[in-house]
Amino acid sequence: MKNSGNLPERIIFPQGEKVGNEHFIGTAWLSLLVPYDEMYHCPVYNVTFEPGARNSWHKHPGGQILLVTGGRGYYQEDGKKARVLRAGDVVTIPPHVKHWHGAAPDSLFTHIGITTNTHLGDAEWLEPVSDEEYDRLP
Amino acid sequence: MKNSGNLPERIIFPQGEKVGNEHFIGTAWLSLLVPYDEMYHCPVYNVTFEPGARNSWHKHPGGQILLVTGGRGYYQEDGKKARVLRAGDVVTIPPHVKHWHGAAPDSLFTHIGITTNTHLGDAEWLEPVSDEEYDRLP
Repeated sequence: MKNSGNLPERIIFPQGEKVGNEHFIGTAWLSLLVPYDEMYHCPVYNVTFEPGARNSWHKHPGGQILLVTGGRGYYQEDGKKARVLRAGDVVTIPPHVKHWHGAAPDSLFTHIGITTNTHLGDAEWLEPVSDEEYDRLP
Repeated sequence: MKNSGNLPERIIFPQGEKVGNEHFIGTAWLSLLVPYDEMYHCPVYNVTFEPGARNSWHKHPGGQILLVTGGRGYYQEDGKKARVLRAGDVVTIPPHVKHWHGAAPDSLFTHIGITTNTHLGDAEWLEPVSDEEYDRLP
């Protein structure tokens, strides 16, 4: 994917590499802007979801922050209505809250992600967001 | 300042309020996207510098990360050449490194800032970047 297609805003941060793991449905791209290290303790990454792409339900033991830079997508916490996200939106995800994020069916979606309190451990990955759940979204 | 003038890209995150302290020359705007708190320990803020605006030399005891979202500006470490910054650039500022950042003379400049390792304390503010130093920049 290059910057053709239906990206509503121009890409600011590098798109990076295709995400190649089982915790995503559809195609997503990830570029690590600041790797985890012992100086900053603050990994920062740019994630681009193609239309319809989303990650599985998951939890972060130390929380996460999302800064939306383009497109249209969703953030949903378990048991709550999905929140529609657009450029300029900020999401704070408390530790241990089960959630997912991803693109709308008809739009790319790009956010910066920041993993907070990294000393508390890695994300815990759970079940995928089924087509049934996803197709019910606004 | 509204979104008129010479902002090369559109503003993504809120512009916020005018910075009203003695550590800036010229006009800058700050919006706190994620305040410091005891859950995330990760303050995130959007800073917009009007053309010619810059902060004073300063140090962060726990470091800082800058993610440039628009315009053209500078980052300079003490004793080094200034780095020209544009949208998509990422700057990692190690703890205790004396530096400043700000706009080019003829462009707005917007970056997200992340203060890392907040438990190590507040920024230490030093002398302003004189017109003489600033006017020598590329």
